[in-house]
Amino acid sequence: MNKRVKAACELCCAVNNKGTDFPPVRLHNGGEYGYVGTHTVVELIEAGYIVVVMDNLANASMDSMRQVNEITGKQMPTFSMDMLDKDALRDLFKKHKILCVMHFAGLKTLGVSCNKPFLYYKTNIGGTISLLEVMKEFGVYNMIFSSSATVFGSPSYLPIDEKQPVEGCTNHYGNIKYFIEEIIKDICTAEKQWNVVLLRYFNPVGAHVSGKIGEDPQGVPNNLMPYVSQVAVGRLKELTVYGDDYDTPDGTGVRDYIYVVDLAQGHVAALKYLEKGCDCKMFNLGTGKSYCVIEMAKSIETASGKPVPYKIAGRCADDIVSRYADASLAEKELGWKANLDLAKMCEDLWCWQSNNPTGFSTES
Amino acid sequence: MNKRVKAACELCCAVNNKGTDFPPVRLHNGGEYGYVGTHTVVELIEAGYIVVVMDNLANASMDSMRQVNEITGKQMPTFSMDMLDKDALRDLFKKHKILCVMHFAGLKTLGVSCNKPFLYYKTNIGGTISLLEVMKEFGVYNMIFSSSATVFGSPSYLPIDEKQPVEGCTNHYGNIKYFIEEIIKDICTAEKQWNVVLLRYFNPVGAHVSGKIGEDPQGVPNNLMPYVSQVAVGRLKELTVYGDDYDTPDGTGVRDYIYVVDLAQGHVAALKYLEKGCDCKMFNLGTGKSYCVIEMAKSIETASGKPVPYKIAGRCADDIVSRYADASLAEKELGWKANLDLAKMCEDLWCWQSNNPTGFSTES
Repeated sequence: MNKRVKAACELCCAVNNKGTDFPPVRLHNGGEYGYVGTHTVVELIEAGYIVVVMDNLANASMDSMRQVNEITGKQMPTFSMDMLDKDALRDLFKKHKILCVMHFAGLKTLGVSCNKPFLYYKTNIGGTISLLEVMKEFGVYNMIFSSSATVFGSPSYLPIDEKQPVEGCTNHYGNIKYFIEEIIKDICTAEKQWNVVLLRYFNPVGAHVSGKIGEDPQGVPNNLMPYVSQVAVGRLKELTVYGDDYDTPDGTGVRDYIYVVDLAQGHVAALKYLEKGCDCKMFNLGTGKSYCVIEMAKSIETASGKPVPYKIAGRCADDIVSRYADASLAEKELGWKANLDLAKMCEDLWCWQSNNPTGFSTES
Repeated sequence: MNKRVKAACELCCAVNNKGTDFPPVRLHNGGEYGYVGTHTVVELIEAGYIVVVMDNLANASMDSMRQVNEITGKQMPTFSMDMLDKDALRDLFKKHKILCVMHFAGLKTLGVSCNKPFLYYKTNIGGTISLLEVMKEFGVYNMIFSSSATVFGSPSYLPIDEKQPVEGCTNHYGNIKYFIEEIIKDICTAEKQWNVVLLRYFNPVGAHVSGKIGEDPQGVPNNLMPYVSQVAVGRLKELTVYGDDYDTPDGTGVRDYIYVVDLAQGHVAALKYLEKGCDCKMFNLGTGKSYCVIEMAKSIETASGKPVPYKIAGRCADDIVSRYADASLAEKELGWKANLDLAKMCEDLWCWQSNNPTGFSTES
């Protein structure tokens, strides 16, 4: 533990609510919470950073971390702990000299967050405040936070640049990301020591080229691409497309799908940017390209050679028709842009899905 | 403790942050935090409700509660406790059968909230979640929450009705009120047992006609009318008016000043409304009338017979030029409207200020 630790990468933590009535939530084998985090750890190590990972005891995501160790050939210190447990956080900060915390932690699944607002507010907002407080105690004032394009709600114009107002989120998940952004901004305004980059992810897809790590959501996927690839691999019967009568090229919703490895490299670029001192800055991490739902399904058909049957259902209430990024600020300031194209994203996703038809789990 | 308790009125609580590094915050003798609360207790008792008060140990607001007991001739159960202390909350709910919680608690002072965001988020948001959780444990699903017209930020149209979007708050205080509103709305959406009324106060002014209770802010007042009356009584030298070149009748900012006793009666009306079952409803509590800064200063001059000298300074960044309510929904749904006029408000304010030149404190 004597080596200098340059970046702490926080994954999948803050899921137990200690001292509350909520039961521990089990994450499915490093599932969707570890998705961007694990890919970022790989890119950080490739860029020469030393990484410490924190995770919670309640989940089994060490499977995905073992895969990361295999890809990188490094064995990184891993803390099994809860973000709400300040003493455990203090222990981490005592043992390691941290340059920057990358905060990927929080509960995510949309349906569950709507049903359990207490749990989500306490874990995601309470956990973030707890983390920021301990960082401050140890004089660690650098953070990169995983925000989301959902903070923009229904965009007032397209493509979405960083000047777009962040308000009017149409769902609970977006609201919590928005609240955390505002809390962090307020703290940065009051306490000038902080340097924070808020990264608004558009729609991360794909998997590491090794096929060893990828997105592995708990239960039925909420996101399009894991759903589509689970249809292609035969785990799910068909895709349901909600609404095909929107004012878009094929009538279905439009999103900006970004390759998860590009997104991970965006974190490395943000870390380099932040090391120079930046106060609080926001960047939209997307490709600037937009694809409809059926185009995405067809791309997986092409990559996999498997059919992806789909049926059309009615529109979802509060669904956003189109959302894609103006990614030019990130290119200008961070020197970063998304490189990989849709076909390659889908190939890598298929490589992951077909190598791991049941995700990190060995169950059939 | 055997009598049926029909309403719990919560004042000035949640100021100690137990288990954190923040020092206890002392409230100045029941100061501004107890202002709307104490007046509401008086009106609830006059309307026949039984009231339990909770407050935190760290402040001296028992002075104002003694005055309330004197006005009403009732001695009400008072719990000295912290809203973040769930065990103490449980103790209250075990001892009393609560019909509805009126939640006035939270840190308020604007300048301090900008400087101490951790403290404010933990106390106001953390405290509210803690309170809601304990209410749920005890099957108490009725709440009236003290929100604020600041949730509207810079209004997109005037007067402000309940359809006005709540977003783009221009300050930290408004942001926290907005977050709490959203948290409560999410909880009401997820858990249908809840009945909550969110009352958006416009600018409460004046004091109880007895002259025994009134607004007594800590330090230099942030709000106009306590400032003006402290100038009239000789505690402060002169009023500073920020901006006299706005597009308003006299060039100064315009607000909707509501008599605090009218506002308190609005809570009683909301309680009666809520007893019938309402899910989550929002009401703007204002008069619908608008006054400029200098008009307000002149009204105190008239009421007091004392001069209120003022000087003009530059505009404040992010200040809202005009904000006043469309109060028709409250009249229609709650059967409530503000009655008292400006001259009488100022007379009662002056009665309080001249009887209590140093507020509840006996210091000179």
